[in-house]
Amino acid sequence: MQTFEQLSKIFAAHFDRRHFPSEPASLYDAGQYFLDLEGKRIRPVMCLMGNELFNEIHPDVYEVATAIELFHNFSLIHDDIMDNAPLRRGKQTVHEKFGHATALLAGDMMLVTAYDHLNKVHPGYIRSIIDLFNQTAREVCEGQQLDMDFEKKQVHLNEYLHMIELKTSVLIAASLRLGAILGGAGEGNQRHLYEFGKCLGTAFQVQDDYLDAFGDPSKFGKQVGGDIRSNKKTFLLIKALESATGFNAKELSRLLNENPDDKVERVLQIFRDCGVDNWAFNLKEQYMTTAERHLEEIAVLSSRKAPLNELAAYLIKREH
Amino acid sequence: MQTFEQLSKIFAAHFDRRHFPSEPASLYDAGQYFLDLEGKRIRPVMCLMGNELFNEIHPDVYEVATAIELFHNFSLIHDDIMDNAPLRRGKQTVHEKFGHATALLAGDMMLVTAYDHLNKVHPGYIRSIIDLFNQTAREVCEGQQLDMDFEKKQVHLNEYLHMIELKTSVLIAASLRLGAILGGAGEGNQRHLYEFGKCLGTAFQVQDDYLDAFGDPSKFGKQVGGDIRSNKKTFLLIKALESATGFNAKELSRLLNENPDDKVERVLQIFRDCGVDNWAFNLKEQYMTTAERHLEEIAVLSSRKAPLNELAAYLIKREH
Repeated sequence: MQTFEQLSKIFAAHFDRRHFPSEPASLYDAGQYFLDLEGKRIRPVMCLMGNELFNEIHPDVYEVATAIELFHNFSLIHDDIMDNAPLRRGKQTVHEKFGHATALLAGDMMLVTAYDHLNKVHPGYIRSIIDLFNQTAREVCEGQQLDMDFEKKQVHLNEYLHMIELKTSVLIAASLRLGAILGGAGEGNQRHLYEFGKCLGTAFQVQDDYLDAFGDPSKFGKQVGGDIRSNKKTFLLIKALESATGFNAKELSRLLNENPDDKVERVLQIFRDCGVDNWAFNLKEQYMTTAERHLEEIAVLSSRKAPLNELAAYLIKREH
Repeated sequence: MQTFEQLSKIFAAHFDRRHFPSEPASLYDAGQYFLDLEGKRIRPVMCLMGNELFNEIHPDVYEVATAIELFHNFSLIHDDIMDNAPLRRGKQTVHEKFGHATALLAGDMMLVTAYDHLNKVHPGYIRSIIDLFNQTAREVCEGQQLDMDFEKKQVHLNEYLHMIELKTSVLIAASLRLGAILGGAGEGNQRHLYEFGKCLGTAFQVQDDYLDAFGDPSKFGKQVGGDIRSNKKTFLLIKALESATGFNAKELSRLLNENPDDKVERVLQIFRDCGVDNWAFNLKEQYMTTAERHLEEIAVLSSRKAPLNELAAYLIKREH
């Protein structure tokens, strides 16, 4: 059993290379540029972890993990176009550096390249691997569409949660499960691992929203209140819009419309008045508890689960 | 053996239906809208023809043909975004009707859906099917990128020809060959069929360029000279830029820059002076002759080739 860090190094040795032909450079260099920005590669490493939970590393898992990382990067390139984002990982986005049309095409060919890798998987596994990969890809597209739809309308907490699951959680869940499929895991074990990943992904998103508002700036690594300043829909804001009444409801609506200088402090105060801070903290805890329950249910020796437990603890700081 | 028209009806019976889930409608209705514009479905029907050339129709060929048509529509939706095209098949493009972000996502999910269908192919064929499909998808992306690159620079005829092969011809060639793979065709037969399709595709593009300039408006179905008016790079213009000298060279350059009212007539006169009209006509003939030679080389009874010969004759009007 290897830790996340050990498996990260092994994956990097496979992945950190030129992925595309040299010509036309105008297309392929744009794609390679984005891969060279070096994300944390959490998803493909989770695929390796899902595999090693059940068995020795299967050689095909590197192909599946590579497909997952290419898919993730494809979706980021296209999301950045849709969101008109200038920066990603502190560098220019692909459309900023190479133009919208090339960014669109670079994403397309990256998705096609993901399937090149899936197509190298042993024929006995390929159908179930592509099935889950495709279901997930479709859900990620649905999540992005819902996210855009939600910008224009009032959203209930359940709808928002569903969107986050599609946009964020299912890819983490599927990464683990795709590895488990290649590890020969049974259906029940696969399902528990998938739910573990899904709850972990949602807990992480709740935590991210929480820290953006209530995090310690010295530990959080970025200025707090960014989501509030940009009126970004988060778990906190949606819960506050649902639960604020009277003066707080009117004041929140005014702050969102008028963007005064003291907006962050005032919104945070309303969050506290409505108990949204404790609510979010507890929501994260609930998801983590459910995640842990699913991990416990997986029928392998507990010692094999240690790396996943460590990763969960690393991703989600629990304070109880 | 069935004709193109007969196979078109059979394919339509499989394809003309709702392809996507109902929700989120904001995403899936955009994709379905484009499919409902009803193209000519030439590529998937050629896939059926490539299959029937060698054998009884294989049931999996409908999955492959569906994947091809979904891929083609995906590439059109994204090309329309890149080209900023307002109309397709006389109707609003997806980005015009549903917005750029949704059009981008609708294309993405359509590409993913294409792989759903490929993933239903019998395990004995799936790897070679996805290999050729992916190689083709990558080449179509390369062709689109080169097309955009060529807008900004001087292009030699060989480069332009290469771009057209990637953007247009290889998908027609691959459609035939994907059918042939499922028909159990040997490597040599597959290669001749592929080259037949590639030459046919290029001949069709040369003819399209020729007719836009020299076609009989009453037969061509659209106003002639559209390509000239918009300075579109075509076989004719690139050949003229390469071969015009002296006054004609200067005049052509002036006409492209100044767009005078009599631009079409004057450019056509330069085309005639340089012999570009006869050259293009002969180029089309050469490609058709090569296409026919490859079709002849395929080792099946000549009678099985009749539908492909008829289709070629229908697509390319030969006047000799």
